[in-house]
Amino acid sequence: MEIHIKKDRPSPADQYPNRARMLISCPDGPGIVAAVSQFLYQHGANIVQSDQYTMDPDGGMFFIRVEFDLEDLTSKLPQLEESFRSIADQFRMEWKIYHAARKKRLAIFVSKEDHCLVELLWQWQAGDLDADIALVVSNHPDMREYVESFGIPYHHIPVTPETKQEAEKRQLETIGDDIDVIILARYMQIISPTFIEHYRNRIINIHHSFLPAFVGGKPYAQAYNRGVKIIGATAHYVTEELDGGPIIEQDVQRVSHRDDVNELKRIGRTIERVVLARAVKWHVEDRILVHNNKTVVFN
Amino acid sequence: MEIHIKKDRPSPADQYPNRARMLISCPDGPGIVAAVSQFLYQHGANIVQSDQYTMDPDGGMFFIRVEFDLEDLTSKLPQLEESFRSIADQFRMEWKIYHAARKKRLAIFVSKEDHCLVELLWQWQAGDLDADIALVVSNHPDMREYVESFGIPYHHIPVTPETKQEAEKRQLETIGDDIDVIILARYMQIISPTFIEHYRNRIINIHHSFLPAFVGGKPYAQAYNRGVKIIGATAHYVTEELDGGPIIEQDVQRVSHRDDVNELKRIGRTIERVVLARAVKWHVEDRILVHNNKTVVFN
Amino acid sequence: MEIHIKKDRPSPADQYPNRARMLISCPDGPGIVAAVSQFLYQHGANIVQSDQYTMDPDGGMFFIRVEFDLEDLTSKLPQLEESFRSIADQFRMEWKIYHAARKKRLAIFVSKEDHCLVELLWQWQAGDLDADIALVVSNHPDMREYVESFGIPYHHIPVTPETKQEAEKRQLETIGDDIDVIILARYMQIISPTFIEHYRNRIINIHHSFLPAFVGGKPYAQAYNRGVKIIGATAHYVTEELDGGPIIEQDVQRVSHRDDVNELKRIGRTIERVVLARAVKWHVEDRILVHNNKTVVFN
Amino acid sequence: MEIHIKKDRPSPADQYPNRARMLISCPDGPGIVAAVSQFLYQHGANIVQSDQYTMDPDGGMFFIRVEFDLEDLTSKLPQLEESFRSIADQFRMEWKIYHAARKKRLAIFVSKEDHCLVELLWQWQAGDLDADIALVVSNHPDMREYVESFGIPYHHIPVTPETKQEAEKRQLETIGDDIDVIILARYMQIISPTFIEHYRNRIINIHHSFLPAFVGGKPYAQAYNRGVKIIGATAHYVTEELDGGPIIEQDVQRVSHRDDVNELKRIGRTIERVVLARAVKWHVEDRILVHNNKTVVFN
Repeated sequence: MEIHIKKDRPSPADQYPNRARMLISCPDGPGIVAAVSQFLYQHGANIVQSDQYTMDPDGGMFFIRVEFDLEDLTSKLPQLEESFRSIADQFRMEWKIYHAARKKRLAIFVSKEDHCLVELLWQWQAGDLDADIALVVSNHPDMREYVESFGIPYHHIPVTPETKQEAEKRQLETIGDDIDVIILARYMQIISPTFIEHYRNRIINIHHSFLPAFVGGKPYAQAYNRGVKIIGATAHYVTEELDGGPIIEQDVQRVSHRDDVNELKRIGRTIERVVLARAVKWHVEDRILVHNNKTVVFN
Repeated sequence: MEIHIKKDRPSPADQYPNRARMLISCPDGPGIVAAVSQFLYQHGANIVQSDQYTMDPDGGMFFIRVEFDLEDLTSKLPQLEESFRSIADQFRMEWKIYHAARKKRLAIFVSKEDHCLVELLWQWQAGDLDADIALVVSNHPDMREYVESFGIPYHHIPVTPETKQEAEKRQLETIGDDIDVIILARYMQIISPTFIEHYRNRIINIHHSFLPAFVGGKPYAQAYNRGVKIIGATAHYVTEELDGGPIIEQDVQRVSHRDDVNELKRIGRTIERVVLARAVKWHVEDRILVHNNKTVVFN
Repeated sequence: MEIHIKKDRPSPADQYPNRARMLISCPDGPGIVAAVSQFLYQHGANIVQSDQYTMDPDGGMFFIRVEFDLEDLTSKLPQLEESFRSIADQFRMEWKIYHAARKKRLAIFVSKEDHCLVELLWQWQAGDLDADIALVVSNHPDMREYVESFGIPYHHIPVTPETKQEAEKRQLETIGDDIDVIILARYMQIISPTFIEHYRNRIINIHHSFLPAFVGGKPYAQAYNRGVKIIGATAHYVTEELDGGPIIEQDVQRVSHRDDVNELKRIGRTIERVVLARAVKWHVEDRILVHNNKTVVFN
Repeated sequence: MEIHIKKDRPSPADQYPNRARMLISCPDGPGIVAAVSQFLYQHGANIVQSDQYTMDPDGGMFFIRVEFDLEDLTSKLPQLEESFRSIADQFRMEWKIYHAARKKRLAIFVSKEDHCLVELLWQWQAGDLDADIALVVSNHPDMREYVESFGIPYHHIPVTPETKQEAEKRQLETIGDDIDVIILARYMQIISPTFIEHYRNRIINIHHSFLPAFVGGKPYAQAYNRGVKIIGATAHYVTEELDGGPIIEQDVQRVSHRDDVNELKRIGRTIERVVLARAVKWHVEDRILVHNNKTVVFN
């Protein structure tokens, strides 16, 4: 039964049907901004926001994000991309243009802890997360009813050490071909390199510690034992190195000796929710570029 | 006696002798970024950072800050400015190009509380404030020796209700013509409209509350009486309206019922120092644009 | 249909069935702590936590909160309270002993914005809010299905300027006699002095600004217009003075010129949720004492 | 030349000449608070603040800090301590009573980075650090003039790998017998176990990272390479394990991809200053108890 009615707050995607976002990484050099902005101007686009960053002025990498409006974007986009190719080649660019009105499609993976899932569903339903939640995948059956009450399909795919490979295969089939990003909302299984390869820089995990402190299991118990005065959470892209991928966002909260492990977990749940939701928001708004093992976040 | 030896950390101004910063405000419209970046490219400049912001895509104001390197900047800058005029006219720009290597000259005004002055002097001496502190003006004699130990001139200009007008005249004469910005580092006299007019958007004040809460005198006592759980400080440009000018920066710290007024003041001193120092840093790095009563801070 | 299954995390109330919390306010003087702790010791109680605060050592007010365990608390509590009376009289104490295992009963009032309600329901369902949510009252019908899916009764009581007095009467009847605290979770009606009198220091409101800044309506629009760099929210007890009651908790988040009013609202929703939930938690854990227009929060 | 005149703000030590602070750790059990408060009451003491904490109600450790006023404290303290012994024995207490008016004597150790030293001297001179700075010890001569301008002795004791043992011996002689606490204000030499043993839980170090992340050298370079979004600093007591001692205080600040290593260091300097100053303040106010490798901070 669908009892959660999505708010009809105006979505950016709806408000600006002709908005595009362009992400570019390339070796730094003179003339890049001029070439890009001249190109957009000549094609009738109006730049509404632009951010750039040079990792090191002398021979480093250059990153740029441009938001622009272009009338009839849908029909003109293919031609625009075609025309841009020569500029891209000239500056050896990695680049991508996203149509903002085409909402990103999310798959959320979850295990038994539900707070991150609940937050994402709530933000989505409140109109604060401008994306489509296509499906939820879980290795447990517990949250089916809750997820389905939002009108979102729930796929229970059990995972055991023996069936892990098979389970991942089923997960990939279930997800299909049109998912843009996978959110591990406290999904407690390690993802295999093969799976990661399919979704390079498109799997976002929330780790319940201020990485790189307390890598691995039971980070709140580790934090309690070390007597830290601040705890945190970290959203990062998943790579082959456990808890070692590019950090997207972190946040913290002050704690004291009075807070036992259960209280740290309780406080941590709110930090985790907020940090993961921010990382997802920035990803779906095409604000993140990854270079080596670091992110450039234009927020 | 000069006992404070300035650290020889590399200053940005020294590191990048050919760096310029361009600040532009104008009505939004198509082609601005293209025109500016094309212009810079044609003149041989290399953009190393650029930020822009549109207040409202449909007919609002457009703000842009560009940092670029241009060989032989000193000799080429006059010609560059001359050439830019036609673009500026076309888009009705307010604009300015600053030579980063030409350090801003500061005048610091102070009364009896010294913590903000001490912070600025320390950051300057540590090489963290990339500016010249040209002189300190005070309505009290107390800090002469301390200021002079940094090799900085100290001018004691007493102010009484009767002599105020005369005192401001002396202040203006003392400052002379080549001061870029005046810092009110807990200077407890109200500045007259005439004086403000001389330094429009170039007088930075630190107010010891989280404005607009607790405008006026004794803000920590006001905060204590209201029982707030967080106190703050606000750095703003001085306008004719008391504590009403454009806000540059604010920060806060958590307090509790245990903190009496003296403790709030003590905590506040650290917030004030940090907030004022940040605002000054952004100003001397040409990161602030003012529009109506608000700031755009590209930091 | 009840689809939200409450987590069976161990609740403090369940874990410590014999736990009591004692709150005392009285004029300061020698011997208070000795008398209270001696009394508890003689009655077989074991103090597990104790906080105290003297507003001013010389003749001010003294506040103390004691958590203690006492075997067979339920049967012994009436006698304990009876015996304590003579000490209380001697020191002119206002005092109260709460049985921690008796969960506080909450009534939540809500209008159309649901984020604060959702947060409280979620924290309750997650076992993070150790209280009973007895009912939800709203002047709109919108959230019935959602609230009822938690198994919580929903009462739609419309309010118009004409029917306001009548509506409040119905609200009071609906609430009945055994509600401990009322939470205004973005309930957009002003509560009458008569109603407030029934629940003195037992109505918690969330105001969507960093009080005392931006009292009254549309605080995010006010904040945007003033160009503040930090926004906040305030949870406070409701008094006859609008937005003027004792502040329980505040928190803030940094914003920038890039954030328009809608974005400030979006950011604000998360601050509001977190701040209100903390205030409610502290109230139901008997951590708050009110004196004049200020709170002492032993957290 | 002494050019820094200490502010004559009223110091707590001066305001409350008869104030004492009692710190107790012992196994938890019934009757402790009653016994202590009854004892103090019978001896005519008036408790002005008291905090306690039980690490685990069932058989854990109990910590209590009591601030009290007792007329003629100086003459009565020896007798009071003598009398308390039987209670202390009964409950197997570790305990200590401090006379608040007897200011703690600090020795500050520093190498070449001066920001933490400057902060402590400034807070001391401003009357914000209620302690005596007895001397400064450095392995470099650089800051002699600056330190002496505060009227504080400066001891230059060079340290090389070969002379380290000898140098520590000289340090201990120089410090003498009446130093309460040693502050390592960015002192870049590892302290030997022998030295640590002399000042168990009385050496405070500031580490320029959010421990346990980035233990060891060059933490800002480590943080930059890992791409963290928040950096921090940690004040801790020094133990034989490098950067592994009990954490007293931590704080953090948000950074972004734009901040290079130099900028991280610059931002870090302010966090380090603030965190170390807080830790020192709490230590000299007898607010810290150490148990195993953790601190209980009653602040």
